[in-house]
Amino acid sequence: MRIKGKHFRSIWREGDCIKIIDQRYLPYELKIVELSSLEEFFYAIKEMQVRGAPLIGVTAAYGIAKSIYEDPGDENLLKACKILEKTRPTAINLFWAINILKKELLNINIDDRRNKAMGLADSIANDDISKNEMIGINGAEILKELARNQNKSNINVLTHCNAGWLATVDKGTALSPIFKARDEGLNIHVWVDETRPRNQGSLTAWELENEEIEHTVVVDNAGGHLMQTGLIDIVIVGSDRTSLNGDVCNKIGTYLKALSAKDNDIPFYAALPISTIDHKIEDGLEIPIENRSNLEVKNIRGLDLNQNIVEISLYPNENTRILNPAFDVTPARLVTKIITDKGVCLPEKKEISKLLNNGEKIELE
Amino acid sequence: MRIKGKHFRSIWREGDCIKIIDQRYLPYELKIVELSSLEEFFYAIKEMQVRGAPLIGVTAAYGIAKSIYEDPGDENLLKACKILEKTRPTAINLFWAINILKKELLNINIDDRRNKAMGLADSIANDDISKNEMIGINGAEILKELARNQNKSNINVLTHCNAGWLATVDKGTALSPIFKARDEGLNIHVWVDETRPRNQGSLTAWELENEEIEHTVVVDNAGGHLMQTGLIDIVIVGSDRTSLNGDVCNKIGTYLKALSAKDNDIPFYAALPISTIDHKIEDGLEIPIENRSNLEVKNIRGLDLNQNIVEISLYPNENTRILNPAFDVTPARLVTKIITDKGVCLPEKKEISKLLNNGEKIELE
Repeated sequence: MRIKGKHFRSIWREGDCIKIIDQRYLPYELKIVELSSLEEFFYAIKEMQVRGAPLIGVTAAYGIAKSIYEDPGDENLLKACKILEKTRPTAINLFWAINILKKELLNINIDDRRNKAMGLADSIANDDISKNEMIGINGAEILKELARNQNKSNINVLTHCNAGWLATVDKGTALSPIFKARDEGLNIHVWVDETRPRNQGSLTAWELENEEIEHTVVVDNAGGHLMQTGLIDIVIVGSDRTSLNGDVCNKIGTYLKALSAKDNDIPFYAALPISTIDHKIEDGLEIPIENRSNLEVKNIRGLDLNQNIVEISLYPNENTRILNPAFDVTPARLVTKIITDKGVCLPEKKEISKLLNNGEKIELE
Repeated sequence: MRIKGKHFRSIWREGDCIKIIDQRYLPYELKIVELSSLEEFFYAIKEMQVRGAPLIGVTAAYGIAKSIYEDPGDENLLKACKILEKTRPTAINLFWAINILKKELLNINIDDRRNKAMGLADSIANDDISKNEMIGINGAEILKELARNQNKSNINVLTHCNAGWLATVDKGTALSPIFKARDEGLNIHVWVDETRPRNQGSLTAWELENEEIEHTVVVDNAGGHLMQTGLIDIVIVGSDRTSLNGDVCNKIGTYLKALSAKDNDIPFYAALPISTIDHKIEDGLEIPIENRSNLEVKNIRGLDLNQNIVEISLYPNENTRILNPAFDVTPARLVTKIITDKGVCLPEKKEISKLLNNGEKIELE
């Protein structure tokens, strides 16, 4: 997508160099960083220089490709996989991408692994864009149909966190249908949840601003009131892992918005690539939920009067106890449908299995 | 209640001086401010030097008493009332307190009004504490019963915003049962919602810290997940206005927590003085909801590395559109019971009317 009119991906390769946008500085500063060592890839995922389930997977794939460049032997390959698996526990795309590389590379000659690994990472990155394009096409139909059925010229979408192009390689998941429907002439206004503690809503606002789509930022507390007062037509969120029965694990707070959507008869969709579905988990509440550092809640980053990026502390007492779970699970009963690259379906085991069987298998150890 | 062991009220009179704690500086700095002119009282309420429905009412009462000191004539009295009514639209205690003074003062000789006004304001302030004490007694029974019934030695309460002593003159509403039950030996741990955009959760954490009650701060997004994973036994919130049918208007985001409590079979209580009930409104959705300045969302205050209070901006683009509704309405069907100074009752018109008839009449114009 575009930054001030110029096309960007969130991660890209220049020869042997892997470059990313360090998202911790957005929307304040566009900082491009090169990742080389395994430690740098580990840090980038763990500390959220990159974030968003699909992008985490792609970054891990490039991380393995770069890590085995000096030593493509089994031991080094398995070490890289093991280390990168430890970065983030919830998003399944991480394990999915690592497993693709591990399996494919262990099956071939050591000398062929360097090129193969980079090729696999490239293809996972490119596939991500194609999948998101399909999510956009499938989801845009839903938005256009909603506008037709309700005879509205303007559709109000609420989204939580950032599931835009920055969360993927390009196009996004939850935002892809919005970009697509807008391209096809639908008037869209997006309500952007701030998404504490890391305020990824500011990334969503920044994307929408660059794509010139109308939007309004609200605190995470506001969505219920907006729905009660008729200001939201549809909710679309992403997913970090989706269980076989259609439970959607996504950024903390998603569940609250889904409850409110249900209570106000507003359709609630999750947009996700098939790679986000964990066919080994039937009940979403079994998905491991990452607890992240207290400092993400205690401290906050923004611009001071001189437009410098500074971090301030919101709690003066160092001993204030804080819990910071990063995700929650929205039960399938609250999800209208899931929008995937392979089609749109009810959040039910039978329908999801059908999509999975037509699509790729998710291989976990 | 106590600040570092020393007893404080949120507003008090020293001779003819009215003093408040400027809550905009908490929990970073204890700044005591004297309010004298009508403009200062207007500013204090409007800009939230004082906040919390009960405290707003008391502050307005003192504001009238001070404003008529020079000129206790009808015109000046009515002008003071009219100006203070314009500060905040949602909390009904404001109008309730102003109306008490207006009515009583218009009925007496002009020369008697100065003393009478100050006496009325004092008595509203003192009554507030007695009422909150009663809310504490009534609510503590619920907490103790919950502990007995569930055979638990420790009760986990979630609260949203600050409905502690800082939101009242002393004791608090939602926190009063917690203080009381703790005094009676119950082990309590409080989950404190951060409560964006103004982070009044930090006031709650600060109160609990000073009262040595265990607590953990979470972002507003986290409550649903905590409830899903069994970490919350009961929710208690305050109310800025309660309709006759038991709909509870409270800080934005309360509705989302109530939905989640219902979905997880967790009892949800609102603790409020009878003065918060609006007998003229049957449907809570008719309650006027205040939209506050965008800057409350866009900018945030905290401590820099040198422990100075600084404000930073979270959105670099000045044109980022923001909506900042300050309250939402939790329908009665999501409220287990309301805890008042006159007793505990179901959120139903019949029961609430019974409490009202035994208690004071809420006279609005």
